Amino acid sequence: MTAAPPLLAPLSAVQVGPLTFGSRHIPLLAGPCSVETPTQMALAAKAARAAGAAFLRGGAFKPRTRPEAFQGLGVEGLDLLVTAARAEHLPVVTELTDIRHLDAFLAHGVDLIQVGSRNMANYDLLKELGRIDTPILLKRGLAATLQEWTGAAEYVLRGGNTRVILCERGVRSFEPAYRNMLDVTAIGVMKESTGLPVVVDPSHAGGRAALVPALARAAIAAGADGLLVEMHPFPEQAWCDADQALTPAGLESLMASLRPIARALGRDL
Amino acid sequence: MTAAPPLLAPLSAVQVGPLTFGSRHIPLLAGPCSVETPTQMALAAKAARAAGAAFLRGGAFKPRTRPEAFQGLGVEGLDLLVTAARAEHLPVVTELTDIRHLDAFLAHGVDLIQVGSRNMANYDLLKELGRIDTPILLKRGLAATLQEWTGAAEYVLRGGNTRVILCERGVRSFEPAYRNMLDVTAIGVMKESTGLPVVVDPSHAGGRAALVPALARAAIAAGADGLLVEMHPFPEQAWCDADQALTPAGLESLMASLRPIARALGRDL
Amino acid sequence: MTAAPPLLAPLSAVQVGPLTFGSRHIPLLAGPCSVETPTQMALAAKAARAAGAAFLRGGAFKPRTRPEAFQGLGVEGLDLLVTAARAEHLPVVTELTDIRHLDAFLAHGVDLIQVGSRNMANYDLLKELGRIDTPILLKRGLAATLQEWTGAAEYVLRGGNTRVILCERGVRSFEPAYRNMLDVTAIGVMKESTGLPVVVDPSHAGGRAALVPALARAAIAAGADGLLVEMHPFPEQAWCDADQALTPAGLESLMASLRPIARALGRDL
Amino acid sequence: MTAAPPLLAPLSAVQVGPLTFGSRHIPLLAGPCSVETPTQMALAAKAARAAGAAFLRGGAFKPRTRPEAFQGLGVEGLDLLVTAARAEHLPVVTELTDIRHLDAFLAHGVDLIQVGSRNMANYDLLKELGRIDTPILLKRGLAATLQEWTGAAEYVLRGGNTRVILCERGVRSFEPAYRNMLDVTAIGVMKESTGLPVVVDPSHAGGRAALVPALARAAIAAGADGLLVEMHPFPEQAWCDADQALTPAGLESLMASLRPIARALGRDL
Repeated sequence: MTAAPPLLAPLSAVQVGPLTFGSRHIPLLAGPCSVETPTQMALAAKAARAAGAAFLRGGAFKPRTRPEAFQGLGVEGLDLLVTAARAEHLPVVTELTDIRHLDAFLAHGVDLIQVGSRNMANYDLLKELGRIDTPILLKRGLAATLQEWTGAAEYVLRGGNTRVILCERGVRSFEPAYRNMLDVTAIGVMKESTGLPVVVDPSHAGGRAALVPALARAAIAAGADGLLVEMHPFPEQAWCDADQALTPAGLESLMASLRPIARALGRDL
Repeated sequence: MTAAPPLLAPLSAVQVGPLTFGSRHIPLLAGPCSVETPTQMALAAKAARAAGAAFLRGGAFKPRTRPEAFQGLGVEGLDLLVTAARAEHLPVVTELTDIRHLDAFLAHGVDLIQVGSRNMANYDLLKELGRIDTPILLKRGLAATLQEWTGAAEYVLRGGNTRVILCERGVRSFEPAYRNMLDVTAIGVMKESTGLPVVVDPSHAGGRAALVPALARAAIAAGADGLLVEMHPFPEQAWCDADQALTPAGLESLMASLRPIARALGRDL
Repeated sequence: MTAAPPLLAPLSAVQVGPLTFGSRHIPLLAGPCSVETPTQMALAAKAARAAGAAFLRGGAFKPRTRPEAFQGLGVEGLDLLVTAARAEHLPVVTELTDIRHLDAFLAHGVDLIQVGSRNMANYDLLKELGRIDTPILLKRGLAATLQEWTGAAEYVLRGGNTRVILCERGVRSFEPAYRNMLDVTAIGVMKESTGLPVVVDPSHAGGRAALVPALARAAIAAGADGLLVEMHPFPEQAWCDADQALTPAGLESLMASLRPIARALGRDL
Repeated sequence: MTAAPPLLAPLSAVQVGPLTFGSRHIPLLAGPCSVETPTQMALAAKAARAAGAAFLRGGAFKPRTRPEAFQGLGVEGLDLLVTAARAEHLPVVTELTDIRHLDAFLAHGVDLIQVGSRNMANYDLLKELGRIDTPILLKRGLAATLQEWTGAAEYVLRGGNTRVILCERGVRSFEPAYRNMLDVTAIGVMKESTGLPVVVDPSHAGGRAALVPALARAAIAAGADGLLVEMHPFPEQAWCDADQALTPAGLESLMASLRPIARALGRDL
């Protein structure tokens, strides 16, 4: 690889509330693809906490490939997400798709702001996120090289927001058997070249719940510093990406299968 | 291919001022990658007009892979672009990267608003562009499937702005010998499935000036409804993408070589 | 691009019988995907000649993705191909998949031996082809870089067989709307870096007959030195790749549409 | 995924000598890229055995991208490989590139015949391998879909040779930071759809020794049934792929780091 671009400072771990990404502990960020109802979110939050998740995830603003698809509940979704999470004493992670929503994100106290694959190269958005204090979860673009991903991270870092966590979520490939190709090689290469923690999203990578456990295991084994997993109280009723959400029981069983792997690496989750 | 998504209305040509994309005539949109100085733009506009270009292009807001790269002159660049173009009676096309700049684009009378590859799936931006009346040049995302590109176009169309022109500019591939792989197959397939005109950008596809003539010829032969070509009065001094800009003389010679191809297809440019 | 590997000798055109690939004239190589019956081949040969084709193509040994698919008639297919071609005074091009068939190819006087995409990196086969005198049509591997393709050509050239013609046939991509992505940029880059003529196969690139005309036009416009086109007397009855074969009338109409493009470039076909 | 093609018989494990691929035990196949000298091979065999490897690998016939690169010692290399392995009571795995070498492979008692990526779709070779009794290690083609890889396996299986072991070795991608992109998702999907064991080659995937441990861990965690790893007594002196070979000490340390992962999954190696 050609030399990684220089970063503003040597970084090795990112603090988000009481948690540290890039440390011995590997946080789990779990929850539904989209925020739907108060009941759904209350059940999701309880299930996330029961499974040992460190964060509740849920999409209030959903970037969808087609305009007639459900686009998320918007600010109302933020309310539901935060209310459900606080009841379980969990911080939240949710995706920002438009700079004009930033004030609402800050007002709701979103703990970790996700930038999705589709906006990885939305540099105007990244520049604004460099000016705030909330940590950023920066997903890799659909076909972004590691250099381009690094460049995107630097847009945030150079603005002064040094809390950037990367998220590998699979890249576009020629293979039709699963949604995206999880690039496990990227985990270590990016950790070493940027010093930033790398979280992995096995749910969007595989696109099917049945693939999540193997991909999550591979991610941990390759050095992932966190996992972003879709879980829905009733996956078959999910308003989006129903195929890829785990059930609450599936999430618990996933965690149980991952713990020995983490321990084998001297880590825990 | 799976069935193309239904569009709001059968479209076959897009009117932009006195020009029609998708008609017998194939407009050339030419100019520098970035707007730099009044002199550069005046020379570029004269050269564009002399070569028979129908539009002056030039970037005022530049999305660059790395934050320390030149990011464009911003609103001042819009001024220079429009001033230079009006002096030669040319309409302008320029890229919008942030919804917050839209008012400036409208105030400056930008004739055709480009959405770049990096923002093809910035759906919040696309929704706003569906609410205005200015035509949109929608570039294909770096690794967007034709269905995803169609979905992006529908975000604009469904808002009520029916003047969308597509722009194929090469896609990401495994081949290191040139920047992107121009997908000539996409031209006809998208024209047929969406009814929208398709312009081709041979400059960003190849990434080198020497490749532009062959790619432009192939694009016209495959049915392109317009060409977006980088030209700079002094390419070796260009502030960005110096390798891919044609000289004014190169543009004239390109046009001379393209005219017989267009005529062979019953078209002109 | 990094420097192209040096070739044994500067080459600019390849003579095959009375034809020259890489000259002003652009030969058409047409015929069915697979050799099926004497009647089919006689009709194909007549139709090829009537359309102005310079070669009859037809597969006797068919590499198929699945073992239960029709694998070709073998040596009997060679007989049928050569008999049909000679009756119309056409040379033949056909694919060699196994070095053990080479003697049969030589005994039948195959005029141009095709190495398919699947065998581009079958170096033992290429070395043997470097020892004979029959010209070789070397297709690009499914995802071969230009350097790898060049390396494959050198395996033949270094053996002493300097008559190598390259064939671009589309590469694997993420796009499901058509079979392969025709890489028109490769045509000129390979001609310049290797000095070898480049033929294009629009039939395998697009995978559908309806896409062939636009791809063939783009190929000619980009500088292709020949076209390899599937044509079957009754495409709907073809034993393989039925979707991509032109009818005899379709081939005539293709040729009529290509001639003005060739003329616009100072060439003919 | 579309339905996997039916196989001749439900298979779940492949016996090779005293070893079973697809069982609780995960064999390590280790050795140099190419067979070079008796001393090199003797040291490699000792080191492989010391590290706990179950097989000695080494290339006698090397498919190289460029013809002037070292092409392997040929039959002499087979001799050296087998001699060194037998002295350490190890079975051997080595690549067959040409059907004409098969008799030599059988005469030397090669225990597992590897078909490399470049020959995955060399169906004439695969058909011949379906007629013998020696088990086959079938690498995935550079950009082969899982369906194509399955089709290749069926060429061997349908011939009557039911001992096929698949080998994932990374696929071609757009990313320049490492040689190939290891597709961990393919491991489980192929095991489930074909019933065949899947071995992983982390050395060719990453292309650099420093990447091997993380990729090997991810492979085991994702369910790999074996590992094919390059190890050379003196990597810096290797005649090919010097960058990717582990030292003997590196191999021992790799094994030590993998054992806890295997145990966490209820397996051993």
